[in-house]
Formats: sequence, structure tokens, C-alpha cells
Amino acid sequence: MTQESQRPKKFSYAAGSLLSVADLSVEDVSAILSVASQLERRPTAERARLLAGRRIALLFYESSTRTRTSFELAAKSLGATTTLVSDKSSSIEKGESLKDTGLTLRALGAECIILRHPSSGAPFVLARETGVPVLNAGDGMHEHPSQALLDVRTMLMRLPGRDASTATAKSLDGVTVVITGDILHSRVARSNALLLPRLGAKVLLCGPEPLLPEVALHLGAGVEIVRDFDAALRRAQVVMMLRIQKERLAGLELDLANYIERYQLNGERLAARAPDALVMHPGPMIRGLEISGDVADGPNSAIELQVSNGLSVRSALLLRALYTGGFESVTV
Amino acid sequence: MTQESQRPKKFSYAAGSLLSVADLSVEDVSAILSVASQLERRPTAERARLLAGRRIALLFYESSTRTRTSFELAAKSLGATTTLVSDKSSSIEKGESLKDTGLTLRALGAECIILRHPSSGAPFVLARETGVPVLNAGDGMHEHPSQALLDVRTMLMRLPGRDASTATAKSLDGVTVVITGDILHSRVARSNALLLPRLGAKVLLCGPEPLLPEVALHLGAGVEIVRDFDAALRRAQVVMMLRIQKERLAGLELDLANYIERYQLNGERLAARAPDALVMHPGPMIRGLEISGDVADGPNSAIELQVSNGLSVRSALLLRALYTGGFESVTV
Amino acid sequence: MTQESQRPKKFSYAAGSLLSVADLSVEDVSAILSVASQLERRPTAERARLLAGRRIALLFYESSTRTRTSFELAAKSLGATTTLVSDKSSSIEKGESLKDTGLTLRALGAECIILRHPSSGAPFVLARETGVPVLNAGDGMHEHPSQALLDVRTMLMRLPGRDASTATAKSLDGVTVVITGDILHSRVARSNALLLPRLGAKVLLCGPEPLLPEVALHLGAGVEIVRDFDAALRRAQVVMMLRIQKERLAGLELDLANYIERYQLNGERLAARAPDALVMHPGPMIRGLEISGDVADGPNSAIELQVSNGLSVRSALLLRALYTGGFESVTV
Repeated sequence: MTQESQRPKKFSYAAGSLLSVADLSVEDVSAILSVASQLERRPTAERARLLAGRRIALLFYESSTRTRTSFELAAKSLGATTTLVSDKSSSIEKGESLKDTGLTLRALGAECIILRHPSSGAPFVLARETGVPVLNAGDGMHEHPSQALLDVRTMLMRLPGRDASTATAKSLDGVTVVITGDILHSRVARSNALLLPRLGAKVLLCGPEPLLPEVALHLGAGVEIVRDFDAALRRAQVVMMLRIQKERLAGLELDLANYIERYQLNGERLAARAPDALVMHPGPMIRGLEISGDVADGPNSAIELQVSNGLSVRSALLLRALYTGGFESVTV
Repeated sequence: MTQESQRPKKFSYAAGSLLSVADLSVEDVSAILSVASQLERRPTAERARLLAGRRIALLFYESSTRTRTSFELAAKSLGATTTLVSDKSSSIEKGESLKDTGLTLRALGAECIILRHPSSGAPFVLARETGVPVLNAGDGMHEHPSQALLDVRTMLMRLPGRDASTATAKSLDGVTVVITGDILHSRVARSNALLLPRLGAKVLLCGPEPLLPEVALHLGAGVEIVRDFDAALRRAQVVMMLRIQKERLAGLELDLANYIERYQLNGERLAARAPDALVMHPGPMIRGLEISGDVADGPNSAIELQVSNGLSVRSALLLRALYTGGFESVTV
Repeated sequence: MTQESQRPKKFSYAAGSLLSVADLSVEDVSAILSVASQLERRPTAERARLLAGRRIALLFYESSTRTRTSFELAAKSLGATTTLVSDKSSSIEKGESLKDTGLTLRALGAECIILRHPSSGAPFVLARETGVPVLNAGDGMHEHPSQALLDVRTMLMRLPGRDASTATAKSLDGVTVVITGDILHSRVARSNALLLPRLGAKVLLCGPEPLLPEVALHLGAGVEIVRDFDAALRRAQVVMMLRIQKERLAGLELDLANYIERYQLNGERLAARAPDALVMHPGPMIRGLEISGDVADGPNSAIELQVSNGLSVRSALLLRALYTGGFESVTV
């Protein structure tokens, strides 16, 4: 497969794994977007034959609604059999290691494992130890690559004059994306900050110092820190809000009211600074905290489109991991 | 669809929602019973084509065995794909609102949402915000409409001279149903007290004052309070026992032994007062508390029939919500 | 069916139940192994028709990864519909009895119930009360019969000169199996100690007195206690290690370091005493405690093979419980 030969040689994980957006060449991203677009046009019954009889394990060490559900529904829509192993009802709580749980799932016939784990790097361990394609569904504060891919698809669908079925180094040329909130702890921010600049976008990270400590971040090309949300918004074509965990604010220099005052995306602020910007949120969102309800439900919002793009992008990722005819041959 | 045009105009929820038994005309009830009966006669393989490829989400904020399992098995038997989101393993615990969880499920392709929620009225919120058909699987102390429907089907099947495949305002003429236990907190009691009189039944609510406070209840036509269980039993063709939560008795005027003495349905009491009465219980039941084991397992008991009717009635409700050919055209 | 007529008459449970290895004649074991072998050779699509449309309930009162997942995947691979009821999200926590949960599942159409329960004997209660075939997936400290069957298949596959598709009273002639660890609390040890000698094996139970109290054990023919692990190993063709729960060691005469010193199976010990022995572990294992990582991953290890044999053996057990053509007619 083309994307295989173009993958950096240091990776020895199973073809089709997605551990980090760094695994993906721009050509890989393009192939994923292309397959996602094609899948949406396929009849249900035809889609259900693509991975008929294949086994996919969902291994979730953290709770999740949209990521788990969308991977699960994507797998089922392709005809695959799924099984969910979560820390709530499994041997995980008996102290079994990630490696042994992975080997068990492989021995049970799992041909692909979707992993959410609180530790950064856990998907690398799982992929290395099992040799099975692993899809990172969020690992600690590290990465959430399928989220960044669905975010790219959403931007390409909603920003004027773009093509969502392909990607090049210029796909997001001239687009400034403001990401605001608890950047430090956000794997969504990290994956987007790594991916978007490679497609031509400029990324502005925004938040108070405790949530966005300059020293702790290794900023790549095309990524910039802007403390003043209003100033950042004036430059934005896209504004992506992140969930704030109240408990994280405690002990910081900010209280809740102060945070809302300075960083909440509400209707007034949006209208004044970025009336045409696309509004995104990876969810779950807390209305009235980082985002107001009118903005979440307003015409600028692409929040629900993000969710449905999760389905098509994750379906494409499952095909990439498992489709035996070769990923490109999915194309109609 | 007929039932649409006959629904009160104040409801603007998606056709096929079932939020309260008040949504249902007697004709609606009749159509549901008719489809439930037809479904039981259909071959498995044929049933599995009716909702093939459709997506149904089960959103459970409270634990459940029979309601969740029967909706899930009903959906699968019709060929639909299901996904379960429960508060144990989802973003619900991260503080996401019901509205946003619902919008997420809709964006993931859920065409119908089955909701159990501790707050009365939650299904109305979900139906209004998502526009997706919502089936109320129990909301706080408010309603449990699918339970009332399966109870009606059970009565019509077991009481002499009735037809379980149809309903009219006289279907339960001459039938007195005694409902005994923690009426105050029971959504099952509420849904039955609303539905049964419209089909001609008389409902006697029975229990001690703390569990059945006269002032708090808005009794409709055909509903009466009777404090003396033995007196009520003498009038009963049907006796429906409700689970007693021991912790609710604490602090009330009654202790457990006293409650059992006065309100337990046991073999001796049943034989003496209502030897031919149909015995029902929505489950889960605590044998030895509100009901004795011999009665639960005895010839009067319709408790297992209630469970299996849950399957056929809920299958009919799913078809009502989703069958694109129109609900009536399901009829063979 | 042959295995039916040969089953001791005192059992009145549904044909196809597996509650204890004592239920099984050697001929039964042979039939199960034969079907397991045949299933592995069948094409996926053909296997998926064997139990198409049948309903199987998984009732788990204790957490589990491999047992639950392998029963679930086995059922799905045969085309059956599964539903999981666990104590984390069901009426179990409301105090419903095992009997009533079982009757509910039966009324919901479950044709077979797979039960894991913390109380020894619970599967007998469930089988007696429901009349439905029950597969014991682990009951307290009592038995785990499907584990013993998959262990037999694993030994027959890996020990030289054996046939894994059949069983006789001499299948394991000349084989000594050392089982080491917390024998007292291990249902895996108990089921193996009951089954292996009937196939010709010698079983050595090994562990410190608190975990292997002589007085509490009713040893059958072919079972012996050996305190010295090194001495036992020198006689072993198979060594089966059991998980040690650290909390169990507390209060005993042994501390963790002492236990590891005397009973851990590590590379040095294995090379010195039993360089050719097959290494087994039912999982979940704690590397560095009862077993070292090099042994778990080494060439002697059959641990992953045990897991995949779980799939084929449990598929055979499900067919035995449900296949309407008669269990023998599965044979190709």
C-alpha cells in the first residue's frame, strides 16, 4: 500500500495502525478523507459487506460516549463484529497489564484494537506487543488522532472553496484556527496542532498561563501562542473551544467567573470579533462555561457535523487497518 | 399515519415518540397491540428485515435489566443496530447535558433514542431538542408507558373473553385492577393509572398513607384509593404488586414486618380474597417482601408473560417509530 | 443425543448445560473436542449460520475479560444474538434474586444463559429454576469447567503425539500437570483436578499451606499435594501457574518476596527443572509475581493458545446447548 511505503521507517507497527498524527503523511490524510467521502455515498447494504466477519475490539480504560460509540457504529456499519472491554467490567481491574490484555484480545481473534488509555504512549506499547493494528482513541495528554482527522474534514466541508475528499499541503492555506481552553491537558489540541499546519493552516493556541504554559509546550511550525482571546478571535476563520474541567481551575490564578469573562465564546464576543468563523468543539461541552448555548446551537457551529464526520473518518480508519483488498482499492 | 393526525396538536415531537401514555389515543394503543400480535407470528428471518440497517441508541441514566434488555433484543430481532450509552461508562459523568448527548447520538446516526432517566420529563426535553423519535423507558417518578402497554396486553391475553390484538374503550370493561405498594414513587403505577381507565378498567390504588399520600395524587376518572388491601383484593380481577424499597419504609409509620402483615400478597391472602385474580409485577420483585414466592410462581401469576410481552410490545413501538412504510402497513 | 443418555440420572438440568466437569463423561469431552476442531476448519460464513437467530444471555455477577469476551465472540461467530447483563448496570443491584433474573431472561427469549457468579453452586440454582441450558463461566471457588476443557485441548495440541480432536481415558497418559498458586480459592484448579485424571493425567497441586490447606481439600484419584515447587517441576510435563492476589498473602505466613522466591516460575527455574514443560496460565496473570515475563512470552508458553482455544471450545459448548440438529450432527 502506498501509505505504507511512505511511512517513516522507524515505525514497525502493523500497517494500518494510527497511533499519532505523526504517523500520517499528507498523502495518507488524503486517502483517509477520500475513503470517508466515498463511504458516505455508498448504500448501507454494500458498506456492510466491506468488513463482514472481521473482529474489532474496543479497549477503553477511560469512559467515552462519542469516540467509543462512533468507532463501534462505524465498525458495525462495515459489517464487523465488535466487542467492548472496559475497565468497569473486566480483568483490567485485577491488575492485568495492557500487554497481556492486548495479547488476550489478539488470541480471541481481534484483528484491530481501538484503545483509549489514560497514559500517554499506551497505544505504542499495545501496537508493539501485539503486532495488531491499533487505533489510538485518546492516550492521556498525548494524542487523539482520529479527532484531528475529523476536524480537518469538518473544516474542509464548511470553509468556502475547499474540497473535503482530498488533502494537500495547501488544503488549509490562509486558514487560522484558534484553539482555546485547557491546552496543557488536551490531546485534541495536541493532535490538531501537529496536523493542521501540515495542511497549510496557522494554529493559535489561547488560554491563561496555567492552562497553556509556554515552557512546557514544544511548538512546531505554524503554531503560536496568543494570550488575548479577543485578539486571537479577530484573526480566526475557525475557533475550536475545549472543555474546561472546573477542578483544574481551582488552585490556578483564575476563578470560574474570571475564566468565563476572558475566555468564554459567547454570542456577543463572536459577533464582534469573528462573525463568520466556524465554531468547533470536540465535546463533551459544558454550556455556560467555555461556550454559551446560543453559539453552540448557532449557525456558525459545526459541532454536530464534527460528530457525524467522526463516523465516516473512523470507518475509513477501520478500512485502512483491515480491508484486505488494499486501502486504495476501496475507491469506487 | 393515522395515529399522527389524531395526536393532540400541542405535541411537536417526532412522529413515533412515546413519552407518556397521554400521547396515545385508544386507536394508537390498538395499532400497537395489533402489530405486537402480528410480530409474534412472523418468522425470525422475516422480522429481521423490518428495520435492517437502522440505528437505535439506548441511553440509560439508571440501571435496568428487563427494560434495557427487552428494548435491545427487540431492536436486534428487527435487524436494527443498537448502541448502549450508560452513565457508567460515558461522557454523562463528565457533565455533558442530556441535550448534547442527544444531539451527539443523532449526529452519530441514531434514528430513535430509548431513554431511561431519573428526572421526570427528561424524555420530553430529549425529544424536543433532537427531533428524533424518543421512547420513554422510565423517567423518574413520572411514567413508564411501554410497561403500561405490555401490562394491557398481558391482561387481555389472560383475562377470559378478551382480544389481545386490539383495543377499544371497552377492552377492559368490568375489570378492576388493584395496584399495591409504593404508589408515590412508581412510574409504573402512574402510567397504568392513566391508561387502564381509558380502556374501561377500574383502578384501585392501595398502600399505606406515606406511600400513597392522598393530597399528592391527581386521580383521574376510574381511579380510587383503597387503604385496606384485603378489601381491595375482594374486588380484584387483577392485582399488580410493586417493589418495596426497604429504605423507603424507614422513617415511615411502618416497619417491614408491619408492611408484610398488611400488604404482602401471599398464598393464603390470595386464596381467601381473590382466588381467580391475575397476579402481576413489573419487577424486579423482592420475594418475601411485597410478594411471596408461591404466589410469584403460582398459576395466577402472569409475571413471566409480562416480560415476554415487553419484547413484542417494544418491537411494535420501535416499528412505530421507524418503519418507513408507515406503521399500518406492517400489518400482514 | 449420546451424551445425554450417558449423563448421571441425578441431573435433571436442561440437556446441554455445563455446570461442572462432573457432568461430562469422557465421551462428552471427546465430542466437545471434536466439534471444536471441526469449527476451526469451517469457513466464517458457514459457521455464522449454525446458531443464526438464537438468543444467548451473558449474566455476569463478577467482572471478566477473557471468559466473557470469548463466550460473546463465540456466540456471535455462530450467528447468535447476545445480550450482556452485568451487576454494574442491572436490576441485580436492586436485590432481584438469581432465580428471578433467570426467569426474566428466559421470558425475554434467552435460550441459553452463561453465568459467572461469586457463589459456588449458583449455576445449579439457575439451571434448576429456569430449565434453560446454563453454562457455568465460573462460580465462586467451585468450578470453571469451560476453562478445564480448553486447558485439555491446549495440552493435547502442544504435547507431542496427542490428538486434540478426541479424548479417551488415556489421552493424557504419562502426563504430570503441576498446578501452582492459590489452589484454595481457584475454581480453575478445582475443575482441572477433577477432569485431568479422568483423561489419564497425574495432577500435582503445589503451594504453601495457607493457599493449599490439606484438610480442606478432597483429593480424588490421581491428585497429589507437593509442597516443594522445584521437586514438583522436575516431574512436570505441564506447569499451570495461578494468579496470586497480593491481598490474600497478607496475614499468611508468607510475604510477597518469600512467595516469589519459592513459587515464582521464572526462566532460571524452568530451565533447570523442566526445560521442556508446557507453561500455562488461565489469566489474568501478574508478571513478576507468580510468573516472570520471559517465561510468559517464551517458547514453552501456551498461554495465548489457551485463550484462542477458549473460543473454539466455548463455541462447541454453545452448539452442544443449542444446536437443534443434535450435537453429533454438527460433525462434517
